Amino acid sequence: MNTLTEMPTMTPEICQRDVPPALIDKLRSRFADQFSIALAVREHHGRDESSFAAPPPAGVLFAQSTQDVVDAVKLASEFCVPIIPFGVGTSLEGHLLAVQGGISIDVSRMNRVLAINAEDLTVTAEAGVTRKQLNEAVKSTGLFFPIDPGADATLGGMSATRASGTNAVRYGTMRENVLALKVVSAGGDVLRTGTRAKKSSAGYDLTRLMVGSEGTLGIITEVTVKLYPLPEAISAAICSFPSIEAAVRSTIQIIQLGIPIARVELIDGNTVRMVNAHSKLSLREEPLLLMEFHGSPTGVKEQAESVQEIATGFGGTAFEWATTPEERTRLWAARHNAYFGAIQSRPGCRAISTDTCVPISRLADCLLDSVAEADASGIPYFLVGHVGDGNFHFGYLIDPNIPEERAIAERLNHALVTRALKLEGTCTGEHGVGLHKMDFLVSEAGAAAMDMMRTIKRALDPKNIMNPGKIFTL
Amino acid sequence: MNTLTEMPTMTPEICQRDVPPALIDKLRSRFADQFSIALAVREHHGRDESSFAAPPPAGVLFAQSTQDVVDAVKLASEFCVPIIPFGVGTSLEGHLLAVQGGISIDVSRMNRVLAINAEDLTVTAEAGVTRKQLNEAVKSTGLFFPIDPGADATLGGMSATRASGTNAVRYGTMRENVLALKVVSAGGDVLRTGTRAKKSSAGYDLTRLMVGSEGTLGIITEVTVKLYPLPEAISAAICSFPSIEAAVRSTIQIIQLGIPIARVELIDGNTVRMVNAHSKLSLREEPLLLMEFHGSPTGVKEQAESVQEIATGFGGTAFEWATTPEERTRLWAARHNAYFGAIQSRPGCRAISTDTCVPISRLADCLLDSVAEADASGIPYFLVGHVGDGNFHFGYLIDPNIPEERAIAERLNHALVTRALKLEGTCTGEHGVGLHKMDFLVSEAGAAAMDMMRTIKRALDPKNIMNPGKIFTL
Repeated sequence: MNTLTEMPTMTPEICQRDVPPALIDKLRSRFADQFSIALAVREHHGRDESSFAAPPPAGVLFAQSTQDVVDAVKLASEFCVPIIPFGVGTSLEGHLLAVQGGISIDVSRMNRVLAINAEDLTVTAEAGVTRKQLNEAVKSTGLFFPIDPGADATLGGMSATRASGTNAVRYGTMRENVLALKVVSAGGDVLRTGTRAKKSSAGYDLTRLMVGSEGTLGIITEVTVKLYPLPEAISAAICSFPSIEAAVRSTIQIIQLGIPIARVELIDGNTVRMVNAHSKLSLREEPLLLMEFHGSPTGVKEQAESVQEIATGFGGTAFEWATTPEERTRLWAARHNAYFGAIQSRPGCRAISTDTCVPISRLADCLLDSVAEADASGIPYFLVGHVGDGNFHFGYLIDPNIPEERAIAERLNHALVTRALKLEGTCTGEHGVGLHKMDFLVSEAGAAAMDMMRTIKRALDPKNIMNPGKIFTL
Repeated sequence: MNTLTEMPTMTPEICQRDVPPALIDKLRSRFADQFSIALAVREHHGRDESSFAAPPPAGVLFAQSTQDVVDAVKLASEFCVPIIPFGVGTSLEGHLLAVQGGISIDVSRMNRVLAINAEDLTVTAEAGVTRKQLNEAVKSTGLFFPIDPGADATLGGMSATRASGTNAVRYGTMRENVLALKVVSAGGDVLRTGTRAKKSSAGYDLTRLMVGSEGTLGIITEVTVKLYPLPEAISAAICSFPSIEAAVRSTIQIIQLGIPIARVELIDGNTVRMVNAHSKLSLREEPLLLMEFHGSPTGVKEQAESVQEIATGFGGTAFEWATTPEERTRLWAARHNAYFGAIQSRPGCRAISTDTCVPISRLADCLLDSVAEADASGIPYFLVGHVGDGNFHFGYLIDPNIPEERAIAERLNHALVTRALKLEGTCTGEHGVGLHKMDFLVSEAGAAAMDMMRTIKRALDPKNIMNPGKIFTL
């Protein structure tokens, strides 16, 4: 393991630019009550679910339309002041922090579902619509939007971080599911990228360039995504395993055989204990896979039989079924609340999350060594994984008042990322780079790719006003 | 329909830059026999399957390694001379023409399959490997690479044009299936974009930026793509319909119900006649759907039953099955040879291909009006479609010596694209923009998106040496 001294610093560089009173005046005059400089509002918009801290933005604009965003961007550009798009604040990587000062643009009031094209399996919505709101809006069509990062994030935020989650193993990530965007550029132009056609070879893929750009190239104001028919049959199952390795090796085999499983989530025994306590469940406190199968009734049955056979071969026991929607909802709620269960298990703690993703054949190597290191460290942690994609998260539960604990957690994270990169993986499967993974990104992408990213950034945002200091510094 | 005078010109602007003898000398000295200025070689590399013509490149480099490409790019940059990557010459849109002069870099000798990672369902190969070669190489693993544009194109070319084809309705396009690339930038740097991890949120999606960039941002030298387990069961079926509309409406319903059909191809009655003549078949000379189902034996049976029921509801008859690999191969070969069958049907003709793609609900509107226009024009044509994706191709079979025929064909194409854009579709589903669709791209993307594309191009290729004059002019 690397020693602490070899580690790059994980403290965000804070270098706030001046926000001139003249800009505040102009924003007030243009936006009246939509613009706030109240401290509580600024503080709420100056943090996210990460463990980082920075002074809050100088003001918050509650945008209600693309035109609002355009006007705000043009003013910010005039004064060369940073702007930071904000959805509902669920970033885990410090994306929302005003590390270079500036104005937060909250798009949560841009929450209209604009066009449900059920016959085309697409929907267009404003960037502030959350995934749960979207699914509620399309419910009557028999379709659903599968991307589920756990948090009830906005489509804008999910696009900006290239989010995914539990269903990605079958339905892909925001990369595969965003068809088109409306974006406000750094110059205040309104672009439409992509169309509602399912595929296209028409020029540079600006949609995919914006997806995952973390607000650094433009502000997303509308998103068109794919929908899917609700499966005729859904069943969920829990299977306990004698070891993490057994659960992981089962997963690897499920994927390698091409079984179209819709969800396959690992929860380690220790985290099951936290989940039980938080969600009042009585799951066996052993490593488990939480799975879901989508398809026709016979298709689901076939998938489940194949998976059960594989799991049994690795010592999996207690294959329990949840077939009613209520049981399934309870199980997935418990999975999504693992984070809160973990936080609750150590009052006052903060979680430092990891997000590596490796090719599926490397998953056991990557995960087991990291479990051993985490166990040896003495820091409590939770461990959950979208293991079907080779993606998993440790959350090291540190006491934020004990610097040594943060240092240990960062050392564990550093060792894990180093391992994942050696195994041809990535430092971030779905959370994004933000402030936390800038050094890791350099290791992963290499100097030439970083140069290309910076060149694009400089060309598209020459004043460096779009969420500056995230992904990389210029 | 628009009149001819309203149409933008479809003649490529030819403005060849000087290729100094000093550059030729340096290329000869560095590359010896790998570099050729023989007229036949240059002419072969100065055209593609499009109907365009331009003077050939000044020389052709047969690259054998990424380093060869780096050295050639650096020399070209030094002399500010265009370079045009070349795979096997199957572009339909003039991508390979030296409209601004320069050097062709042929990567077809870079044809090594570098790493088959069967357990991860990935393979890495040099850019000159063709899709058939790739499938041959991975055959013993029980996996396959599904993207099938018909022609036996190279992975580099397929990536550069964001190609797809018959299987895309189920497996996606190159956009979804390229995981990582090795690219030589305009400055001669070697970049790796992406990793072998299935998903990532690590920085700008340079992979997707390069996919579809048509050689204008860099030269792709290695490609990592996804593989899929060969389905346990495959069956193919042909179903004839009383009208194109009936076939299209069946397709729309198949897609809207979420049936995971692997291929669903439309061939109109007239084109069936051409196919029969060319491939010595006796298919009913009526509009037909050629379909393929992949899955477990029961899954395939379920899909086929659902589809048969839908087709019957629209008057589909003569549902014929091809279950042996030989029968299937013969059918798909016939489909892929539709182009050649069509060309043969009018000796000496050239095909002007269309490539619109629309949301599935708009497919009937888009297609039927365009069929009526084509019928009224008197120009013979073929019509085939990846209709499950809303994508179809007319090929207007013109006599290249009769300018009026070309004008009529372009007028038909223009009317079709205009219609597709109004229906929220794209001017090109899979062929790329090349020389032929530059004006259409402007209509589709709009001024702000075009500005962003040009800004990216200027930043990444300040000397405008990477396949200049394609996608847009600067």
